[in-house]
Amino acid sequence: MRIAIDAMGGDHGPAMTVAGALLAAKEWSDVEIVLVGDEGKITGHLSGGTLPANVKILHAADVIAADDEPARAVRRKKDASMVVAGRLIREGEADAMISAGNTGALMATGLLVVGRIDGIERPALAPMLPTMDGSGFLALDLGANMDSTPDNLLQYAIMGSIYRNKVNGLPKPRVGLLNVGTEAGKGNELTKAAYPLLEQAPIHFVGNVEAREVLHGNCDVLVCDGFAGNILLKSMEGTAEFVFKALKTEFTRSFMSKLAAAILKPGLSAFKKKMDYSEHGAAPLLGINGLMLKCHGPSDANAFKNAVRQARIALSNGLVGAISTETSRKRDG
Amino acid sequence: MRIAIDAMGGDHGPAMTVAGALLAAKEWSDVEIVLVGDEGKITGHLSGGTLPANVKILHAADVIAADDEPARAVRRKKDASMVVAGRLIREGEADAMISAGNTGALMATGLLVVGRIDGIERPALAPMLPTMDGSGFLALDLGANMDSTPDNLLQYAIMGSIYRNKVNGLPKPRVGLLNVGTEAGKGNELTKAAYPLLEQAPIHFVGNVEAREVLHGNCDVLVCDGFAGNILLKSMEGTAEFVFKALKTEFTRSFMSKLAAAILKPGLSAFKKKMDYSEHGAAPLLGINGLMLKCHGPSDANAFKNAVRQARIALSNGLVGAISTETSRKRDG
Repeated sequence: MRIAIDAMGGDHGPAMTVAGALLAAKEWSDVEIVLVGDEGKITGHLSGGTLPANVKILHAADVIAADDEPARAVRRKKDASMVVAGRLIREGEADAMISAGNTGALMATGLLVVGRIDGIERPALAPMLPTMDGSGFLALDLGANMDSTPDNLLQYAIMGSIYRNKVNGLPKPRVGLLNVGTEAGKGNELTKAAYPLLEQAPIHFVGNVEAREVLHGNCDVLVCDGFAGNILLKSMEGTAEFVFKALKTEFTRSFMSKLAAAILKPGLSAFKKKMDYSEHGAAPLLGINGLMLKCHGPSDANAFKNAVRQARIALSNGLVGAISTETSRKRDG
Repeated sequence: MRIAIDAMGGDHGPAMTVAGALLAAKEWSDVEIVLVGDEGKITGHLSGGTLPANVKILHAADVIAADDEPARAVRRKKDASMVVAGRLIREGEADAMISAGNTGALMATGLLVVGRIDGIERPALAPMLPTMDGSGFLALDLGANMDSTPDNLLQYAIMGSIYRNKVNGLPKPRVGLLNVGTEAGKGNELTKAAYPLLEQAPIHFVGNVEAREVLHGNCDVLVCDGFAGNILLKSMEGTAEFVFKALKTEFTRSFMSKLAAAILKPGLSAFKKKMDYSEHGAAPLLGINGLMLKCHGPSDANAFKNAVRQARIALSNGLVGAISTETSRKRDG
């Protein structure tokens, strides 16, 4: 299988993407990695070593910046590393791509360069969010589409369920609908209309889930529109940040509290790491006719290696084909 | 001024409402309190003492339960304490009412018994949420309406701004719009359409505010639809609960960590209290043609006393009249 990595994406650029590619290539000999980006810069990060047989470089002269206007940048910068990687998928030269670059531009690359799966109206960005028990849940859509229809939510539910099955091996992923109460009649017009669709879908629908409950791990897939999903994620992040900041203040208040903090620190660091959703792997962009994984901006070499692992599992288990089959089955039925 | 208290509402019923009324009556001689509810039960909580001159009891035989279907209960239970208190406002027998009962039923009482201010389409529930600096922000709507129009959001903004001015004395409350990014063009159809309306409103509009940022205290009023507001509030609560649970686990892990916890406890308790939005007073139901305040279910005597203080300030400063004037001015202009 061939996996393209946008070598220029992410906060650290080739320094981390190249290192990650080398780690992955060493670990999995059945994977061929194509590093797409500025050849000189990529080579510069090989520290004089030669490329392993299963890593190639594909030169791309341009780069999409973090503050580029997504759709416009993808349309104009035809030689940007991200766009070239997307083109490799479309032309069958790669099976998957990984990028830590501009999220909006990656979604635009998915839509404009790679293309959607037939019958999927809106692809969805689906990161894993943390739960108390450490298992996490896949939330979608997390920002690809600000407005959704009930049918969009239905497709998110089906795609998310297939992903958790194919990539995480869950035999029967529990799918929940983000809502303001657990009863069936609760919610806004969107969730009220989506509920009966989810009930009849070929998924294990566990009903409405409140924002307060999601951290308890009572679903494996959480379905929501991109606006509500953003509010959920950002307020979780903001609150956690708020609490940790307050803890820090308490910890440094006096000599005794510093001592106390030193005792508690290892346990708290482990917990903080569990809370950090960027520890939970790359987010797939589901509904695209090819596998696309979004890594976090600050990803290190290990995060890129792990994204290759994720791509490898998704490819081995035919994720995109399974989504496509389910979607066309629904359409034909 | 006359303030009706739904004596039967809240987790503790008359035990706390009566005690709170007595505290308030003692503190403010210009306030007359009407305790509405089961006369026998109310009297039972006077512990044999006589009523102060500025406290009256108005018998109401029925009670709305926590699990009653709101609109139906308000329509049928015409002699429920909450409904009777609402009728006192409508008939000019009371200037305000305070209840810790069923939130949905209180909103139904506002709509069906007291009535809206002319020109207000949707009343909004507006609790104070915590910020890092302890000042807090008023968020509306927090659950009265699941679906909102841009005009609804405009009215929430105006009402919230007037409330912070009249009740909290802020000369120029900063009004923010809950959104997924700070730029003007960000958001879903609703927030994109509301943005220009807020720009032209007679308020100090500070633009879009991300869910991640609200805890930093960068606005005094946060405008959102009831669905997004619920997701925001509940995920803040859920995350804080999650973190405190994890802390507790760390604190009880070993003898040393218990020792460390004992040192840190006072500071953390103070912080936890700051985070608890139920410490931030009663939530007004804005847009009703009369003052209605919702106390939290577990409110104690002091919380009811503080709600009377809040009502007293709002009444003295003509909150409802100011909202009504601004709304009709807008309509006529």
